[in-house]
Amino acid sequence: MRAAIANSGLLRVGEVDDPVPGSGEALVRVAACGICGSDLHALRHGDRMVEQGREAGLPTMFDPHRDHIMGHEFCAEVVELGPDTQGSPVAPGDLVTSIPIALTATGIEPIGAYSNTWNGGYAELMRLSAAMCVKVPNGLDHRRAALTEPMAVGRHAVGKAALQPRDTAVVLGCGPVGLATIAELRHRGVETIVAPDYSARRRATATAMGASEVVDPRTEPAIDAWRRVTGGLQPLVTFEAIGVPGLLDEAMKAAPPQSRIVVVGVCMETDSIHPFVGISKELNLQFVLGYDPFEFLDTLRVIAEGEVDVTPLVTGVCGIDGVPDAFAALDDPEEHVKILVEPGGPATVASLAL
Amino acid sequence: MRAAIANSGLLRVGEVDDPVPGSGEALVRVAACGICGSDLHALRHGDRMVEQGREAGLPTMFDPHRDHIMGHEFCAEVVELGPDTQGSPVAPGDLVTSIPIALTATGIEPIGAYSNTWNGGYAELMRLSAAMCVKVPNGLDHRRAALTEPMAVGRHAVGKAALQPRDTAVVLGCGPVGLATIAELRHRGVETIVAPDYSARRRATATAMGASEVVDPRTEPAIDAWRRVTGGLQPLVTFEAIGVPGLLDEAMKAAPPQSRIVVVGVCMETDSIHPFVGISKELNLQFVLGYDPFEFLDTLRVIAEGEVDVTPLVTGVCGIDGVPDAFAALDDPEEHVKILVEPGGPATVASLAL
Repeated sequence: MRAAIANSGLLRVGEVDDPVPGSGEALVRVAACGICGSDLHALRHGDRMVEQGREAGLPTMFDPHRDHIMGHEFCAEVVELGPDTQGSPVAPGDLVTSIPIALTATGIEPIGAYSNTWNGGYAELMRLSAAMCVKVPNGLDHRRAALTEPMAVGRHAVGKAALQPRDTAVVLGCGPVGLATIAELRHRGVETIVAPDYSARRRATATAMGASEVVDPRTEPAIDAWRRVTGGLQPLVTFEAIGVPGLLDEAMKAAPPQSRIVVVGVCMETDSIHPFVGISKELNLQFVLGYDPFEFLDTLRVIAEGEVDVTPLVTGVCGIDGVPDAFAALDDPEEHVKILVEPGGPATVASLAL
Repeated sequence: MRAAIANSGLLRVGEVDDPVPGSGEALVRVAACGICGSDLHALRHGDRMVEQGREAGLPTMFDPHRDHIMGHEFCAEVVELGPDTQGSPVAPGDLVTSIPIALTATGIEPIGAYSNTWNGGYAELMRLSAAMCVKVPNGLDHRRAALTEPMAVGRHAVGKAALQPRDTAVVLGCGPVGLATIAELRHRGVETIVAPDYSARRRATATAMGASEVVDPRTEPAIDAWRRVTGGLQPLVTFEAIGVPGLLDEAMKAAPPQSRIVVVGVCMETDSIHPFVGISKELNLQFVLGYDPFEFLDTLRVIAEGEVDVTPLVTGVCGIDGVPDAFAALDDPEEHVKILVEPGGPATVASLAL
């Protein structure tokens, strides 16, 4: 099969052996797989990621200097079920998705980035744990279904914010994670959602996803826009969805006393903060990561039932041969929000409105 | 009256005019006033404190380059009540304490540090808002009563940790704030309280205040001691009660996934953290400051009823003339934990066991 292979910060496309489904596994044909900011991180900062994980006392088997296949935001069609898949919730021909975790006899394995298991969505075929697969309901198309995973990240971040009635939100950064956060805030009934971004395109997408006020921070800082809109006396939760050094400190300085900051943007660098600012305002910082299986399932339901429209997120599509081009294109926030890889698609990124 | 006067990082002792109680005020004679780490901070890092407060958008009228009287952990005897004090909860002769806030016609004024209102506890006399004064109950002596304020800080920090049954604690640093935190954790029934400190004296005090395990971090890191004692699988709340750059990052790296860190130590420097560590473990950082009036009142009750014994905290006493010596002595953690200023006491710090 054709696959995009990552190794030591580089991506190449080539032919590799087809995977063979093992015990409990389904062989699936990838219909669409979104490119995640964390893939760009893992490709470019893999060594730092491993080193920081080790310093934090986390187990990792990921070696960025071995060939690996990334891609964990997938929707796929079941080709065949391997041995020991009796009672599987899915059958050949089903369009499915799954959290990107494989159950194996020796433990759990991440699918896609941070893994050397040769099993990711930037390929024609993948192996999934049949027991983890979920049928895509309601005739939802494969492109929207592939957005379940990134949307679940926003859902989880908002869940961790422990929202109270009357809470208002500032979402710093309108990349896919910020946009998923905005959509979930709106889905939960938060009315005031202020979203700054330098990119006009991303600001427009933020509005489409439910932001009540978008600003270019060069013209008006987000906190000023929040004050203008709310009068400055309502409870605020700030979501830091950028992950660049200095932004957390900035968010802490801007935050009103007693407010919460949810850190969902992945900053791989050492960052500087002023603890006195946090102390003097009794800020709460909640770092968040991922989602749980129930959040993932319910996110799929929310999309399939049309409670949240993910259409504005997808801005481009490419084939496996286009993956390196797509990674480069995602560096320009004016150009794209989310690019989906569809095996068999074009060798360069085609712009798309769903 | 005699007073210790701070200005531009220096302390001098001299004679100043006696204060005159204004509308709503009680004139009180200081019985004892504890020296707080924040006084050392305000004296030495006053400019930085003002600058960071301004950056954080907080109002401040404090000018470290004007003469001011610090001291906000006081117990005092009412000398006379000024005008407009009908219905005051206290009368001349009463031993009282108060949160260090004065109500004035133009707003509230901090008493002691961070204020230029010429009203602090390192003096023979002070003005207090009569309505804010609380009579010291149960015949509690003035020395223990003066510990209400720092103990309320620990009580508040523990309150903000939102403890759950089965929570265990690591308290980083056994200075007065760490010790107050330890005492409150024990008071609330937390059984496992691991407390590291380089100072043997402070470790002994931590044990006396309720720590279940004290360690010298040169011999065994706190988190290793916590794992040894708990097996590493119980929920953990870490209290960072030191406030030195690098410690928050260290605490984040050591913390188990999904755990909370309460930041109660005041770090005045820029600090470095690794957000990826926080994200990968979904840590929660709660910065805390001070206490509310109800926490203050109940802390006084808890001390007066003997629920918490503050005796081990007080290690020295001095007169107003001894304040500069006491500030110097507090730099050596082996020498002292809490020094009380008693007007009329010795001109150098006398060691003391209550």
